[in-house]
Amino acid sequence: MRHPKSRILRKALSSAAPVTVVGANSGLTAVLAENAGFEAVWVSSFEVSAARALPDTSLLSMTDYLQTAVQVDRATSLPVVADCDTGFGNALNVAHMVREYEASGIAAVCIEDKVFPKINSFAPGAQRLVDADEFARRIAVGKDVQSDPDFLLIARTEAYIAGYGTDEVLRRAEMYADAGADAVLIHSKSDGPEQITDFMQRWTRPCPVVVVPTTYYHWTVDEARQAGVSMVIYANHGLRASIAAVREIYGSIRDTGSSAKVEQEIASVSEVFALQQLDSWLAMESK
Amino acid sequence: MRHPKSRILRKALSSAAPVTVVGANSGLTAVLAENAGFEAVWVSSFEVSAARALPDTSLLSMTDYLQTAVQVDRATSLPVVADCDTGFGNALNVAHMVREYEASGIAAVCIEDKVFPKINSFAPGAQRLVDADEFARRIAVGKDVQSDPDFLLIARTEAYIAGYGTDEVLRRAEMYADAGADAVLIHSKSDGPEQITDFMQRWTRPCPVVVVPTTYYHWTVDEARQAGVSMVIYANHGLRASIAAVREIYGSIRDTGSSAKVEQEIASVSEVFALQQLDSWLAMESK
Amino acid sequence: MRHPKSRILRKALSSAAPVTVVGANSGLTAVLAENAGFEAVWVSSFEVSAARALPDTSLLSMTDYLQTAVQVDRATSLPVVADCDTGFGNALNVAHMVREYEASGIAAVCIEDKVFPKINSFAPGAQRLVDADEFARRIAVGKDVQSDPDFLLIARTEAYIAGYGTDEVLRRAEMYADAGADAVLIHSKSDGPEQITDFMQRWTRPCPVVVVPTTYYHWTVDEARQAGVSMVIYANHGLRASIAAVREIYGSIRDTGSSAKVEQEIASVSEVFALQQLDSWLAMESK
Amino acid sequence: MRHPKSRILRKALSSAAPVTVVGANSGLTAVLAENAGFEAVWVSSFEVSAARALPDTSLLSMTDYLQTAVQVDRATSLPVVADCDTGFGNALNVAHMVREYEASGIAAVCIEDKVFPKINSFAPGAQRLVDADEFARRIAVGKDVQSDPDFLLIARTEAYIAGYGTDEVLRRAEMYADAGADAVLIHSKSDGPEQITDFMQRWTRPCPVVVVPTTYYHWTVDEARQAGVSMVIYANHGLRASIAAVREIYGSIRDTGSSAKVEQEIASVSEVFALQQLDSWLAMESK
Repeated sequence: MRHPKSRILRKALSSAAPVTVVGANSGLTAVLAENAGFEAVWVSSFEVSAARALPDTSLLSMTDYLQTAVQVDRATSLPVVADCDTGFGNALNVAHMVREYEASGIAAVCIEDKVFPKINSFAPGAQRLVDADEFARRIAVGKDVQSDPDFLLIARTEAYIAGYGTDEVLRRAEMYADAGADAVLIHSKSDGPEQITDFMQRWTRPCPVVVVPTTYYHWTVDEARQAGVSMVIYANHGLRASIAAVREIYGSIRDTGSSAKVEQEIASVSEVFALQQLDSWLAMESK
Repeated sequence: MRHPKSRILRKALSSAAPVTVVGANSGLTAVLAENAGFEAVWVSSFEVSAARALPDTSLLSMTDYLQTAVQVDRATSLPVVADCDTGFGNALNVAHMVREYEASGIAAVCIEDKVFPKINSFAPGAQRLVDADEFARRIAVGKDVQSDPDFLLIARTEAYIAGYGTDEVLRRAEMYADAGADAVLIHSKSDGPEQITDFMQRWTRPCPVVVVPTTYYHWTVDEARQAGVSMVIYANHGLRASIAAVREIYGSIRDTGSSAKVEQEIASVSEVFALQQLDSWLAMESK
Repeated sequence: MRHPKSRILRKALSSAAPVTVVGANSGLTAVLAENAGFEAVWVSSFEVSAARALPDTSLLSMTDYLQTAVQVDRATSLPVVADCDTGFGNALNVAHMVREYEASGIAAVCIEDKVFPKINSFAPGAQRLVDADEFARRIAVGKDVQSDPDFLLIARTEAYIAGYGTDEVLRRAEMYADAGADAVLIHSKSDGPEQITDFMQRWTRPCPVVVVPTTYYHWTVDEARQAGVSMVIYANHGLRASIAAVREIYGSIRDTGSSAKVEQEIASVSEVFALQQLDSWLAMESK
Repeated sequence: MRHPKSRILRKALSSAAPVTVVGANSGLTAVLAENAGFEAVWVSSFEVSAARALPDTSLLSMTDYLQTAVQVDRATSLPVVADCDTGFGNALNVAHMVREYEASGIAAVCIEDKVFPKINSFAPGAQRLVDADEFARRIAVGKDVQSDPDFLLIARTEAYIAGYGTDEVLRRAEMYADAGADAVLIHSKSDGPEQITDFMQRWTRPCPVVVVPTTYYHWTVDEARQAGVSMVIYANHGLRASIAAVREIYGSIRDTGSSAKVEQEIASVSEVFALQQLDSWLAMESK
């Protein structure tokens, strides 16, 4: 099967400007991402877990994540980059994952070099990594089973998250690129971009670099471009925006005994209809 | 099987004050609803469809709605009232629905007297009703197959929505109550509560009445109580709040090239951790 | 997206010999179908419902059928022809269905001209048809929304099942072919092939014809070829074989208090391993 | 929530005669199990994986297994014992699993002391065990989060499978019973029952013992009773019966060009209707 979305994403990764990507955990937020001008959507394990009110500690399964990714994919013309956690087990699990995601029309998957079950990168507690050669083997097995050459497997290293320095991050990123990864995601939870810029200065492989500026959020897309980054992911801001908004609106309704006070702050029913493309669906019926 | 949540909801319905219910289409929003003090959550077909960027025209299936209802139910101690659209077909479909929802732990279901496939009550176009006696029969069949006597089946009439007056609404509501409905939902899309108050003045059955003040939003819970209403549902405000918020935050990130400007407006990562109850989960691991 | 399986099936339909297709409701039976030499698999609503111990009366939803079709598709290199019942509602439901099935990698879908909710064609009771022009419109809408030109929509007429003669069957089949159907399925529950042969003698459209010889089972593929039929579906024989076999083996174990007596009649654990391709999976791990 | 099925199964486990259980991976086979007189059904990871044509090596997820268990449960009045593999990760995964299975109405779950991802017990290759104290902790955490006191958690030791002797099997079984397991499953792949009888002679805990005589299939339920066993599971015979039968029928249809030759060997369409309880469903419609 050939996926135009994989081809589009692959091409975008090789352009000079970073691909800007935003987290979406539903078809609706994917439509909002597309309307806002983002070029791809990230289906984040943190967001999908949080949407179920469960911690991001490998409680949800590949099946759960894939289902959400598919729902997101069907609603948008943007390519989906699916956060696939640790790959859900060993090399066999990665092979199964690649086959299932690719067959389902997902453009790209991303796996990280943490031990399963993992814990969210920003959570307190030890972040344990798998051996780099074992993880590289998983990448190689994953790349080996894909059928569309455009499908992308992104390898994410959590070495900075686990407390290592740039040497180890580089060593891992190079091994993953050499194993066939289509891009490397260098994760950092520093307040500033220093780890990323340090890495970029020493990165010589032709393999594109992906970053997730959740904590170093002052760093702009333009600065990322200058540093040579190929993709910037705003991983969980939609979720966090909706929490703040829903909490306030629920509170107001409960406190005031009606929704009158909040009606102007929230989208109208007509706006929802527009996002559902109700008119074009109804036009189909009257054809 | 006995569901404490059905028993709790049944008991709340018989209290003097209306049960206040809010729409939630995810485990996370259910937690926010519980935190805000609502007494039950409504899993709305409009919200669930919109979350998939699909119109609320019976495109999603019972399977889709049930899965969402289950995810919502698992995340909260509140009872779930599942919007089951038209019942998904004929009396057999209603029987299947009641069995599946009850076995899955959902406290209550609600079906409406529109023809399948339906169209959202606020959408333009004709709203076609099924014959009242056919709908009453579906209610009777549904009630007949439930196993826990506390499980609730709410019958919703769309007669006001379809343009009928109070006579027809009353006739239908009475037939549905007589067929065994545990409550009747009287839907209205007037700007004011007149249809509802008119109905309430003429309603003599002991069967509780449910309202959804989406358009007559100035009407308060207290006024509903005075009118004799037993449940007030704020059906889609969480969804509409999140659309407005996510749209703004996505736009700002895209426009400014970073999330710096919006960081103070959105929930922090730590707040998400708290909603996921990360600490209590991690405590389990170190037991 | 381009589906090689749709292209393969489309090409096979235009060959002189009928495509032979067998019902499969799991990945495992699809593998057995492929091993036996069939050219495609039929995911039957009758089989999928029966596997859930539910009647084939539109109780299961598009979501349920699609999920099974996807599981079947992932396990085999054969194209999947998905029995999509009545199309699950009106023209909008058909459009949604085509989009979802195509995006999920299913090669072909088949819809029938019965009223939703339907009843199985072999069941007692009235078989009600939708107006032919309404059904033709659904076909046109379905064809209009597909994105891969090779994806196939098969239109099935139940006119013989509903008691009509060849004139009405022809009228409907022609309307459906003219509306864009990629093939017409002419269903019959006669003991002999006379209805089918009568139809074939009068059929002049270039549109391929599909048959399901469940009741006229003496009619062979070779005879179907001579009559000009393009596809023969053995719709439910795997299910019926497994019922007979499982019933006997369960009974024997229960009666004798051990499985000793049946061990030679059933597949060995090693044979199951072979069907799971365990060796090739384990080889992946030790790469 | 209180599950009558858990209570029934718990009571049966304490009777003198072993509970006889058979593997079922669909609603239909569960009905056949119930009709044959079995007292519970086992939803086996081996069967569920094989039904997807995937190896039993932790490729499928908790979500997949739970969904199958639910489908089985809904079709039968028998309690379901769900094979939950290794518990899908660490103690948190076990806690999540217990909550989800219990809330979904499953009567009992069973977890085994192998490392995730596991490999099927009869497959070639190393069978690695987790530390007994770590596994006991998972059991304790699982028991701690259940809400219905009747829900059952069965602990399965693979120590014989991994090559250990009775001392280690006993040590582990005792630790698991002491941690709160409601029963221990002692797995063995010997040709005879010697490992099991050896274990039973030395087992002094009041905790019931479960066996799976897949390889020592000459051992009868009566012999198991005499040895003090409380539950005997015929884990995969339905699957193996259906493979043999479907393979033969598919082959015959393909070879002969019709199903005429096999019609007498397979269940009739009417027999399928009876298993679907079509008549009682249709009676509902005409009420």
